[in-house]
Amino acid sequence: MLHFENDYNEGVHPKLLEALTKTNTENLAGYGLDAYTERASQKIKTACQAPDAQVFFLTGGTQTNQVVIDTMLAPYEGVIAAQTGHISVHEAGAIEYTGHKVLTLPHENGKIFAKDVKQTLEDFYADGNQEHMVYPGMVYISHPTEYGALYSKAELTELAQLCRSYKIPLFLDGARLGYGLAAEATDLDLPTIAQLTDVFYIGGTKMGALIGEAVVFPHANMPKRFNTMVKQHGALLAKGRILGIQFDQFFSDNLYLEIGKEALRLAAQLKNILQDKGYQFFYQSPTNQQFVIVENNRLEALGKKLVYSFWGKYDDNQTVIRLATSWSTTREDIDQLKEIL
Amino acid sequence: MLHFENDYNEGVHPKLLEALTKTNTENLAGYGLDAYTERASQKIKTACQAPDAQVFFLTGGTQTNQVVIDTMLAPYEGVIAAQTGHISVHEAGAIEYTGHKVLTLPHENGKIFAKDVKQTLEDFYADGNQEHMVYPGMVYISHPTEYGALYSKAELTELAQLCRSYKIPLFLDGARLGYGLAAEATDLDLPTIAQLTDVFYIGGTKMGALIGEAVVFPHANMPKRFNTMVKQHGALLAKGRILGIQFDQFFSDNLYLEIGKEALRLAAQLKNILQDKGYQFFYQSPTNQQFVIVENNRLEALGKKLVYSFWGKYDDNQTVIRLATSWSTTREDIDQLKEIL
Amino acid sequence: MLHFENDYNEGVHPKLLEALTKTNTENLAGYGLDAYTERASQKIKTACQAPDAQVFFLTGGTQTNQVVIDTMLAPYEGVIAAQTGHISVHEAGAIEYTGHKVLTLPHENGKIFAKDVKQTLEDFYADGNQEHMVYPGMVYISHPTEYGALYSKAELTELAQLCRSYKIPLFLDGARLGYGLAAEATDLDLPTIAQLTDVFYIGGTKMGALIGEAVVFPHANMPKRFNTMVKQHGALLAKGRILGIQFDQFFSDNLYLEIGKEALRLAAQLKNILQDKGYQFFYQSPTNQQFVIVENNRLEALGKKLVYSFWGKYDDNQTVIRLATSWSTTREDIDQLKEIL
Amino acid sequence: MLHFENDYNEGVHPKLLEALTKTNTENLAGYGLDAYTERASQKIKTACQAPDAQVFFLTGGTQTNQVVIDTMLAPYEGVIAAQTGHISVHEAGAIEYTGHKVLTLPHENGKIFAKDVKQTLEDFYADGNQEHMVYPGMVYISHPTEYGALYSKAELTELAQLCRSYKIPLFLDGARLGYGLAAEATDLDLPTIAQLTDVFYIGGTKMGALIGEAVVFPHANMPKRFNTMVKQHGALLAKGRILGIQFDQFFSDNLYLEIGKEALRLAAQLKNILQDKGYQFFYQSPTNQQFVIVENNRLEALGKKLVYSFWGKYDDNQTVIRLATSWSTTREDIDQLKEIL
Repeated sequence: MLHFENDYNEGVHPKLLEALTKTNTENLAGYGLDAYTERASQKIKTACQAPDAQVFFLTGGTQTNQVVIDTMLAPYEGVIAAQTGHISVHEAGAIEYTGHKVLTLPHENGKIFAKDVKQTLEDFYADGNQEHMVYPGMVYISHPTEYGALYSKAELTELAQLCRSYKIPLFLDGARLGYGLAAEATDLDLPTIAQLTDVFYIGGTKMGALIGEAVVFPHANMPKRFNTMVKQHGALLAKGRILGIQFDQFFSDNLYLEIGKEALRLAAQLKNILQDKGYQFFYQSPTNQQFVIVENNRLEALGKKLVYSFWGKYDDNQTVIRLATSWSTTREDIDQLKEIL
Repeated sequence: MLHFENDYNEGVHPKLLEALTKTNTENLAGYGLDAYTERASQKIKTACQAPDAQVFFLTGGTQTNQVVIDTMLAPYEGVIAAQTGHISVHEAGAIEYTGHKVLTLPHENGKIFAKDVKQTLEDFYADGNQEHMVYPGMVYISHPTEYGALYSKAELTELAQLCRSYKIPLFLDGARLGYGLAAEATDLDLPTIAQLTDVFYIGGTKMGALIGEAVVFPHANMPKRFNTMVKQHGALLAKGRILGIQFDQFFSDNLYLEIGKEALRLAAQLKNILQDKGYQFFYQSPTNQQFVIVENNRLEALGKKLVYSFWGKYDDNQTVIRLATSWSTTREDIDQLKEIL
Repeated sequence: MLHFENDYNEGVHPKLLEALTKTNTENLAGYGLDAYTERASQKIKTACQAPDAQVFFLTGGTQTNQVVIDTMLAPYEGVIAAQTGHISVHEAGAIEYTGHKVLTLPHENGKIFAKDVKQTLEDFYADGNQEHMVYPGMVYISHPTEYGALYSKAELTELAQLCRSYKIPLFLDGARLGYGLAAEATDLDLPTIAQLTDVFYIGGTKMGALIGEAVVFPHANMPKRFNTMVKQHGALLAKGRILGIQFDQFFSDNLYLEIGKEALRLAAQLKNILQDKGYQFFYQSPTNQQFVIVENNRLEALGKKLVYSFWGKYDDNQTVIRLATSWSTTREDIDQLKEIL
Repeated sequence: MLHFENDYNEGVHPKLLEALTKTNTENLAGYGLDAYTERASQKIKTACQAPDAQVFFLTGGTQTNQVVIDTMLAPYEGVIAAQTGHISVHEAGAIEYTGHKVLTLPHENGKIFAKDVKQTLEDFYADGNQEHMVYPGMVYISHPTEYGALYSKAELTELAQLCRSYKIPLFLDGARLGYGLAAEATDLDLPTIAQLTDVFYIGGTKMGALIGEAVVFPHANMPKRFNTMVKQHGALLAKGRILGIQFDQFFSDNLYLEIGKEALRLAAQLKNILQDKGYQFFYQSPTNQQFVIVENNRLEALGKKLVYSFWGKYDDNQTVIRLATSWSTTREDIDQLKEIL
């Protein structure tokens, strides 16, 4: 069975596993106070060219979104996001659970744009009933989006400028950031993201970590008592070392970016194969997730050899499926895929 | 430097690491739907002699307490616990964060007793202002307690009977359960605990897991939509396999209990050494945590060779420290300790 | 200055004030345990032809929506509502504050329809990621809507049947219910509403009460410990008598309905005057709120003699304003309005 | 039947009723934006000699405590209070519902003292596990306490100084403040309270208002967007005028204080009568609530003519009851009481 259904169906990248194994018997301080966590933090600051940044490691994506949004918003504030944003649809109401509304905007392949956000903010502040409404207190974007799409530097700059003029933070959910940074056409790198956003996270789980996401507050703007609030959310790991050791590896020898690059190379091959075989794309994704339109009768046969993600009904006879390459995809996987498609 | 400060200063038990390594490239379903998680679950049910039990794996202790308590209580209910209970003092208000009050009782080495719980319940239901008060909706105990103490079967039975007569669940926090099950003098085993409690967890982190706690609902009484509520709390792991694979090992070849036994053997040696050297115990703990009274001037010297936990001031000249053996303590550690004490 | 801006700009209906005055020195039990509250409750049950109903009095609309929704939903559930629903836009996120998502649907003059709700429910239960999403746990409608529109009996029946087939409650927000019940064309009366919904409230504040809304659980389905949860939300009045005494009056001699009828008679006159004067309506509202399109240059002059509500920009030259008659509008007000329009 | 069970068993003080009646047909802005609310606010600032103060009117005591505490605490903070504090025992967990822990201290007739608070704060900041604990973020006191006791100026000053040195607010719950201000022996007046506390409320409900409590932020320190957060808590009244009109009366012609004085005069008479009749006091309360020890066999007879509050069992043969004078107690009530005791 060939696995292209997502980017988290294997365990952990060999380099990270090696580091976990090698350090296993070292006696380290708990709760993220160990030297590896400190070192990972320093390396990330260096990679972001953000010496003032503060870095905090959390376990998974939903937890990270929940903790970041809840601790950065005032109680009367909500967060602006795409209708398709992960926080909006696929986190079981984790944001509302903490008391905050998700204020949704229409999207284009998961992206939202400064002009629409601006309209929302202007409408809000023009409304006479403003005090009876939820204050827009943050803009949330995912990069790559849930559709694999990428913001351009110009688009991110516009969003950043808008957020700054309204004094609300811009939060970039980078659950798959490595696949975005490695894209051929992107003009966004870590230092630029660190400069333009107010908080973002460097996704680990989908890039080859067992668990782990690195939250970066680029401008020394980590909320006060963040550590305590993480504990209060049940999100503080006793063996924080696991997160530090893995990210220390991710940011050694450019590994994080290299993982992304290889996955995108394989994604390009996958795209070529699909095109050659006459498949149609739902839309042209520049990253590791590809969305393909498949005839229903063909799909059944395919499903016997290939695990894919169901994305949605395209029409009565066709279905959109997602195929993802990842840190664990091999060239052999691609070769095999070629045969069975 | 010798490490006896706690039971989570090393990484992961070699057997668990081996299993994680061996299964690393298997393609598995996410979010705990993999075969290892299912297998671990089955083995735990067998070990508990509880065929109707439902098992769910979470990441850490505070998270587990928060999720279990919040999902099992009605909104108008609070949880009865010892004043020294972990949920009462060392979880940064994680229970209150979810809207529930911790109703505290006096303790004896971290234990609470049926007679005091009964008094609380009777007083509550006798109060004319009852409707303006927090309903006691659960009893929380830790076993071993934060002081390493253990409940007897008779004590647990009394608590269980009381809870059943009031129709409120009894929750046993087993963050260090393995060290309790392995104690020489205990008459509590997993099947008895499964029979007497309404929910409990088998601690992994402090017993040698990287991360992971196994929540057991022994009587098919897992709250409806538990999975969704776990997600809503930010506590659902994408790579749930990590938890399943580790607990599959814990419950193979009696490993979980053996780990506990070895740690207690070493704790007995540690106790003997301390006694021989004339140290006084704060109290006689039957498990892996030992509480020792040390003269302050001696403590400084000791601290240069030994890492311990500060537990509290004993008097102006003496301090109570905690020394813990664990899954990672070796006989060499004990030998070295003997020399430096 | 003539006041048509809303239905709560005067104090309290004379009959209610009289009753408050007359009973003022009676010594009554607190917290809603007095005889007037009991009597009001009985009268409402009779008016609803719902002998099993349970009635609870709260203070205001947002509080009522918050308490009802929070206590009737499971923690993992959200509430389906129109995008324009009061809970969705004008309650400062009071629903999300309690942890629940508002799942919005497109609307027609504030109404939502069974077919759209059905689609939402079907899509939800067809989704493979369902467990990572917010369960739709209730349908919220307002009647009249925020636009003054009314559901027909057929429409409400369809919604009710749908909700029952999915076993989720149908909640009708009746902040202005009296103006709906009194409408000429309506085929919905209290007994029908009590029969078709699972919870609804009979609005007091906008119908002439100082404060007060009567929540009705028609099928003996009041959430367990409701009283305690009301207290927990800070919503239990020490002098609950105020609510009981007023609703006792509302439901004596058909007063509640009569208030509605007179306000609608005046609304009909207001409509005629506006039509005669050549004003255009934004839409034809059957209740006490009328939405009129006014040229901007005319608006300024009007604003010197008339207080209205700004509803929205119609185009560059015209504005939509709301004019409301109410329990406190007099025939003299209408006569004066005729002169100044 | 004679009523001394509490201070809220009648409706509203005649002067307040008169004002509500007189202003009833005035057309006023909603949500507390009317002229009476503004005037009441100004008068309270004058009475407090606190020109920078901000005043906000809420409905009842539990609501006020909940809103004030939740909006003034950071998410990681709890509130220090007496074990017997209203927020600690009689508000159904309303504080925990908003996510905050109540950190309790032993009390003396409901009072807590600077030395104990200091110890708590010092212990907290000395604890090495501080980051895993709830930060003490506010001190809550009630004045008079739930036992009718009063703080002296010296005691309040000590608490204030301590709070300032730790930069945490001191909150005074004045549900019965008028009965405290009117006490003969007190050296605390409104200006002193405004000077020493960071937030307090002037109780209305128990002093003769239908509903209403006036929250005072003496140092222009009202939390940002307070109005929106009040709405979010379901605590914003559409007809805010009710609160403004009543407090405008309370602070006209010294009415608020006069009400207190008369109630205390009657309380003094009640005490004399009780003493003359040989009753024992549970403790000597300086305010309107009196706590009397009554033999159980005598109590039954008494209960046929007198409504009292059950306070607690004294011993097997005796009971502590509470008798309260109030704004609605008359000299005739006292005369009658004399006869039946």
